[in-house]
Amino acid sequence: MKILVINGPNLNLLGEREPTIYGDESLKAINDELYEAAQELTFFQSNSEGSIIDSIHAARLDYAGIVLNAGAYTHYSYAIHDAINAIKIPVIEVHLSNISSRDEFRKKSVIAPACAGSIAGFGKYSYMLAIQALDYLFEAKK
Amino acid sequence: MKILVINGPNLNLLGEREPTIYGDESLKAINDELYEAAQELTFFQSNSEGSIIDSIHAARLDYAGIVLNAGAYTHYSYAIHDAINAIKIPVIEVHLSNISSRDEFRKKSVIAPACAGSIAGFGKYSYMLAIQALDYLFEAKK
Amino acid sequence: MKILVINGPNLNLLGEREPTIYGDESLKAINDELYEAAQELTFFQSNSEGSIIDSIHAARLDYAGIVLNAGAYTHYSYAIHDAINAIKIPVIEVHLSNISSRDEFRKKSVIAPACAGSIAGFGKYSYMLAIQALDYLFEAKK
Amino acid sequence: MKILVINGPNLNLLGEREPTIYGDESLKAINDELYEAAQELTFFQSNSEGSIIDSIHAARLDYAGIVLNAGAYTHYSYAIHDAINAIKIPVIEVHLSNISSRDEFRKKSVIAPACAGSIAGFGKYSYMLAIQALDYLFEAKK
Amino acid sequence: MKILVINGPNLNLLGEREPTIYGDESLKAINDELYEAAQELTFFQSNSEGSIIDSIHAARLDYAGIVLNAGAYTHYSYAIHDAINAIKIPVIEVHLSNISSRDEFRKKSVIAPACAGSIAGFGKYSYMLAIQALDYLFEAKK
Amino acid sequence: MKILVINGPNLNLLGEREPTIYGDESLKAINDELYEAAQELTFFQSNSEGSIIDSIHAARLDYAGIVLNAGAYTHYSYAIHDAINAIKIPVIEVHLSNISSRDEFRKKSVIAPACAGSIAGFGKYSYMLAIQALDYLFEAKK
Amino acid sequence: MKILVINGPNLNLLGEREPTIYGDESLKAINDELYEAAQELTFFQSNSEGSIIDSIHAARLDYAGIVLNAGAYTHYSYAIHDAINAIKIPVIEVHLSNISSRDEFRKKSVIAPACAGSIAGFGKYSYMLAIQALDYLFEAKK
Amino acid sequence: MKILVINGPNLNLLGEREPTIYGDESLKAINDELYEAAQELTFFQSNSEGSIIDSIHAARLDYAGIVLNAGAYTHYSYAIHDAINAIKIPVIEVHLSNISSRDEFRKKSVIAPACAGSIAGFGKYSYMLAIQALDYLFEAKK
Amino acid sequence: MKILVINGPNLNLLGEREPTIYGDESLKAINDELYEAAQELTFFQSNSEGSIIDSIHAARLDYAGIVLNAGAYTHYSYAIHDAINAIKIPVIEVHLSNISSRDEFRKKSVIAPACAGSIAGFGKYSYMLAIQALDYLFEAKK
Amino acid sequence: MKILVINGPNLNLLGEREPTIYGDESLKAINDELYEAAQELTFFQSNSEGSIIDSIHAARLDYAGIVLNAGAYTHYSYAIHDAINAIKIPVIEVHLSNISSRDEFRKKSVIAPACAGSIAGFGKYSYMLAIQALDYLFEAKK
Amino acid sequence: MKILVINGPNLNLLGEREPTIYGDESLKAINDELYEAAQELTFFQSNSEGSIIDSIHAARLDYAGIVLNAGAYTHYSYAIHDAINAIKIPVIEVHLSNISSRDEFRKKSVIAPACAGSIAGFGKYSYMLAIQALDYLFEAKK
Amino acid sequence: MKILVINGPNLNLLGEREPTIYGDESLKAINDELYEAAQELTFFQSNSEGSIIDSIHAARLDYAGIVLNAGAYTHYSYAIHDAINAIKIPVIEVHLSNISSRDEFRKKSVIAPACAGSIAGFGKYSYMLAIQALDYLFEAKK
Repeated sequence: MKILVINGPNLNLLGEREPTIYGDESLKAINDELYEAAQELTFFQSNSEGSIIDSIHAARLDYAGIVLNAGAYTHYSYAIHDAINAIKIPVIEVHLSNISSRDEFRKKSVIAPACAGSIAGFGKYSYMLAIQALDYLFEAKK
Repeated sequence: MKILVINGPNLNLLGEREPTIYGDESLKAINDELYEAAQELTFFQSNSEGSIIDSIHAARLDYAGIVLNAGAYTHYSYAIHDAINAIKIPVIEVHLSNISSRDEFRKKSVIAPACAGSIAGFGKYSYMLAIQALDYLFEAKK
Repeated sequence: MKILVINGPNLNLLGEREPTIYGDESLKAINDELYEAAQELTFFQSNSEGSIIDSIHAARLDYAGIVLNAGAYTHYSYAIHDAINAIKIPVIEVHLSNISSRDEFRKKSVIAPACAGSIAGFGKYSYMLAIQALDYLFEAKK
Repeated sequence: MKILVINGPNLNLLGEREPTIYGDESLKAINDELYEAAQELTFFQSNSEGSIIDSIHAARLDYAGIVLNAGAYTHYSYAIHDAINAIKIPVIEVHLSNISSRDEFRKKSVIAPACAGSIAGFGKYSYMLAIQALDYLFEAKK
Repeated sequence: MKILVINGPNLNLLGEREPTIYGDESLKAINDELYEAAQELTFFQSNSEGSIIDSIHAARLDYAGIVLNAGAYTHYSYAIHDAINAIKIPVIEVHLSNISSRDEFRKKSVIAPACAGSIAGFGKYSYMLAIQALDYLFEAKK
Repeated sequence: MKILVINGPNLNLLGEREPTIYGDESLKAINDELYEAAQELTFFQSNSEGSIIDSIHAARLDYAGIVLNAGAYTHYSYAIHDAINAIKIPVIEVHLSNISSRDEFRKKSVIAPACAGSIAGFGKYSYMLAIQALDYLFEAKK
Repeated sequence: MKILVINGPNLNLLGEREPTIYGDESLKAINDELYEAAQELTFFQSNSEGSIIDSIHAARLDYAGIVLNAGAYTHYSYAIHDAINAIKIPVIEVHLSNISSRDEFRKKSVIAPACAGSIAGFGKYSYMLAIQALDYLFEAKK
Repeated sequence: MKILVINGPNLNLLGEREPTIYGDESLKAINDELYEAAQELTFFQSNSEGSIIDSIHAARLDYAGIVLNAGAYTHYSYAIHDAINAIKIPVIEVHLSNISSRDEFRKKSVIAPACAGSIAGFGKYSYMLAIQALDYLFEAKK
Repeated sequence: MKILVINGPNLNLLGEREPTIYGDESLKAINDELYEAAQELTFFQSNSEGSIIDSIHAARLDYAGIVLNAGAYTHYSYAIHDAINAIKIPVIEVHLSNISSRDEFRKKSVIAPACAGSIAGFGKYSYMLAIQALDYLFEAKK
Repeated sequence: MKILVINGPNLNLLGEREPTIYGDESLKAINDELYEAAQELTFFQSNSEGSIIDSIHAARLDYAGIVLNAGAYTHYSYAIHDAINAIKIPVIEVHLSNISSRDEFRKKSVIAPACAGSIAGFGKYSYMLAIQALDYLFEAKK
Repeated sequence: MKILVINGPNLNLLGEREPTIYGDESLKAINDELYEAAQELTFFQSNSEGSIIDSIHAARLDYAGIVLNAGAYTHYSYAIHDAINAIKIPVIEVHLSNISSRDEFRKKSVIAPACAGSIAGFGKYSYMLAIQALDYLFEAKK
Repeated sequence: MKILVINGPNLNLLGEREPTIYGDESLKAINDELYEAAQELTFFQSNSEGSIIDSIHAARLDYAGIVLNAGAYTHYSYAIHDAINAIKIPVIEVHLSNISSRDEFRKKSVIAPACAGSIAGFGKYSYMLAIQALDYLFEAKK
């Protein structure tokens, strides 16, 4: 079962960027740890809305599910919302921090209605829980 | 490590209530399954806002964390929000369904800002993931 | 055909409370008059949101329909809204006064979308009309 | 006691128009049934806001009350609202369907504040209940 | 002159709950101090909206006035608002903290329009000032 | 210089309709008095939005100006707004009462932006002032 | 294939009314040109909301489709919206100007959700495109 | 009968300030012309909200009425609103231009609900009409 | 301990202005009564926003606290809000009437977030309670 | 006369993506059919906002007009809005479905005010009508 | 080239007032430093809206431009907005702090639309940059 | 001290695009002029949101500050907002025109809260002032 983990804008600066909110581990360190736990993962990061849509489209043929941290695009990218709706594999929305307890604009996710579920607030463990959640979903479908 | 699982209004009718949204398993069946996986769980259900607050208060002395599905109170109970803020153990918000893809009023959670994190959309697995999430949180603190 | 008549917060003070709006008959007097007209009625009153939800749940097994005056909960209790959706017997929303011609906050009913119908503005006759309405609904289903 | 039953825009197409919402009986069939139950009724239908206002005005001299289904005008015709306020006989607002559970724009009635009461969601029985309601109102005044 | 002091949700945790906002004295300590200053006081605390309404109703027969800290219910309980309107003895709204300088949702009190007056921001002294205010009100009525 | 005085919905009931707001003089009495003061006036009243638009259109050929009391259409008839914009002669908006101090919905006039000016709150004198205003406008253009 | 072309309020003044926005051709000239291109057209114009609803109703029996320029009624006539929903033949919404780039209130069309499609901004060609669009729709259905 | 004409902020620059909107006559020229027509007038201009309130207060003893052009204070000065409510002589709101057809913020007058009436859009004639309106009001009271 | 009592716009007309809301005692009478109870008071009244700010600034050097009734400025003067924030001595907001039960615009205080606390609804006793409140605050600091 | 047809995000998945809404024809099939009808067409598709802006800029030199289906960018890309404003050749907005009858967020087009016109709801025929519309516009300019 | 530097409410307390936001230099120190850099400057400070308007008016005759820090008036003084529009010399809006990153009410400037440009966030250097900006504007006009 | 000047969408068309708003100088001409004044500048322009984020990230290592004209992205790109927050060097927001006096959507900048300061309305001089502002900021830090 192959899973694509997509990280959106500014997540390439993890560890360096506002560490009190996002922690001090780099994205590579998190990815390595995730990979150790589950070898079927592939990782993709981009700051570009278009490239994220491209990768969601491409994943629909070779992957069983997507774990998506869309960063700030979460709050206004109806194009990513439509991309998720356009494919049939499940997409899990994740966030490192508890977005509800931060800026007002972070309280609304425009991509959530298109996702299978969402997980927020557990730092790097949010990704692990999302991978676990995909497992449950596949199991439930059998 | 003891964990309290609180279910709010109308969740006692699980399995019977709108099964296309909430599934056809009863709350007891879900609780049994959860208990099998993790014996340290205690279960509480109430339709009353005041009783839920009472149980959150009581839990602060004997439990390490709370998994809370506040049902419709999620969307307007600032009193539950304050109760979560009033205690020091972590509370994880869970929902069976993906609340973002349903009624307009279900898109806003007034309790989320007080919770450690939130998990939604995975049916009964939402509870399992929340218990797993509490494990991660305790581990990270050590 | 058994019908449950539920009265919500502050309706226990009928006759005494703002009589220019709500009339000077007590709830007991109204209930007696209703009972005289239709013996299949049972009456329940509570100021507690949780208890009203409990009674809606309980009624689904023994009653054919519910007449509900939810008082001020009408305007914010999504939990009662969900309780009505969770059962299959019809619920008729009633109000003594014409709520649309009073305070701004009384113009919106959050429980109305879950009810079979609503009747407002006829004082105690609102209840009588609601019982009549349930009769029509049952007749129409045959 | 003479009563005028006014039906507003698009109600002339009853039976043919969106039958899953409005039922498959024609307006004439409903009127005939109503007339059988209560011979004091007169019927009027128009798609024109101005004509409805004219008929409300005219009714104030010869009728004891009005049963009004204002159709979509319900949601924006302040002119009908004022017409009801301008006369002294009671007007009962009726709707075939439960307007609160349909489109967003149907949740607000601008004529309700001027009416004596309102009844919605019982199909043709809404009219019968309204006639009954007028009876109660007249009785109460004696 | 008997006065009932009602404390709403989460106030039972005073002293322990967010002490930088609410101070470090327990509710019992505050009540004792108040009692010392004015023996005619009775104290009631509940986390339940319904019980608070019940106690407001009950107080109307035996008490001359009510001092009410409704906690988070202040911001959405129209049922408590109606309960206050339903009785004739004066109710004074109190808050420990200056609610206007905190979260956005705490800026609006839905119970204030039904109260005789309101006092906020003076910690435990808010209660003392409210008792003093009731004295003034009674004096002014003589 | 010929002037058309148009009165909209419900103004035919003047004198009889809510006299504490609109006074107890009939529309005919007001028109007679106006006619006595200025013989160049023609009067038109209709409850129909379409007929008012027709009369505005027709007036553009034979009249120098229009005095318009659009009644409740004032608050939502963009069609009358467009009709006024479609002609070149000036239209003065008048109201008997001070609409700003009444219902919320009466605070907004959608026709005002298309009118040359507006006068409100002086009872029948509002019409006289409007006629005077047209005189001033014509004089100013010379 | 017969098509009804309906023009709403103020469109009878085309050519004379705000020519910088609407052009200087009269409605008759446009209709003649349309008729030349497509003899199956019938034309109807009215300033009355009720008459437009009547003509939409009547057209459902004899016509294959409707081209509708509802003028300012576009922005608030839920009654026309309902009339379109009440019939089965397709209705194409047209506008001479690009309504989105004009007044704020013209940005919202309440009739659009009930129409098969909409065309705006091409002057008289909007009508021609709408007739062409109906052709395509009929062809696609075969 | 003495009348006070108050002009608010920026009206001292009349004639020089945006002449396409406000005309090219100075305030002094307008005042002279008004004075010629009615010698009982006194004039006051200030850019200060507090001074305008002072002059409204002072006028209540010596004047029969006030003509007030509050300039931009019209749109946010609740203090002037309260000042008008605090006195018993009638205040007529005037504006040179048709404020409804200009900036969004000029569409709302917070002082209008406290005024006896309002007149806008007639340039300097707005003042003349207001004086005439006061005459009518005094006449009507006799 | 010197205290400055500041009264804002229109409060100089107390006793004369809308006595059913504000009572029939003059500001001077209230001030005399306050002075009798507490000689350390100084009084200042102004209708000008700027002068109120000046007096708040000046008070920071010679006074221990301020009691401020900002009248209508309460609802829009962010400049007074900033002035209170700019000084270090405590400011208590007072109102004669219960502002929450009056006009919509009076429900929001923009100065409250900068004040130490607020007291409303007790007529002249509001001032006395505020002086008492300052005493409590000073005592608590020792 | 060369025309550029631009398709935005997710339109590359046409035929596969939500076929009940968008039809089952691929974008290539539609483009081929369009090309057969009009050889002067060039086609461009991208999921990237920046690339769409680039292509709009580039087109200004070599093309006579643009047909643009901006997909979800329609609803929030002010940058595309500005790009259209920055060039002089006409841009026609097209949509396959009737966007007004779908999600709330699809009711508002931020690019419409910058376009020459818009066409929606006719499936692939929307493109054909847009090309026809450009023909009319060019003809009208001669 | 003479320039007037106007400072609005509470800026007289600079250095003492919330120094973490506004710095610890007094207004006099800043003015002295500015004067040293550019001798053509005149300085004016007032807490009164009316006086600021007066000084803007007066400056139009003797000064080439104005640098204006309107303090909290920035956010609601339409009267200052109109004063700026009433004169022909350029006005530059300055702020010491980055107002966009502070309270919600500070995010909107009602005077900005009337200014030539605005500069915010550079402490005392905001003034220096504004003077430089005026130089550029004058140069560009030559 | 190296500074990066970033220009966002549509600014590559400067000189050609809406010259009455943006001037008739090309971006290259402006850049040349800036370079002449300050050789430490590097220039970057892109229409792509992702590329702008990439360049902001990259700049954090080699540059001392950024001057950013984000074009229309200013009004909705929370991703750029987060990118600015993710780096430690100061970013100055610039705009050629006074965005507050143009379209409604241009009045709100979502990137401003993350910037050190902002400068708008001085054409190409906005860039020069921003470079000067960075100088002041660096000087102040020493």
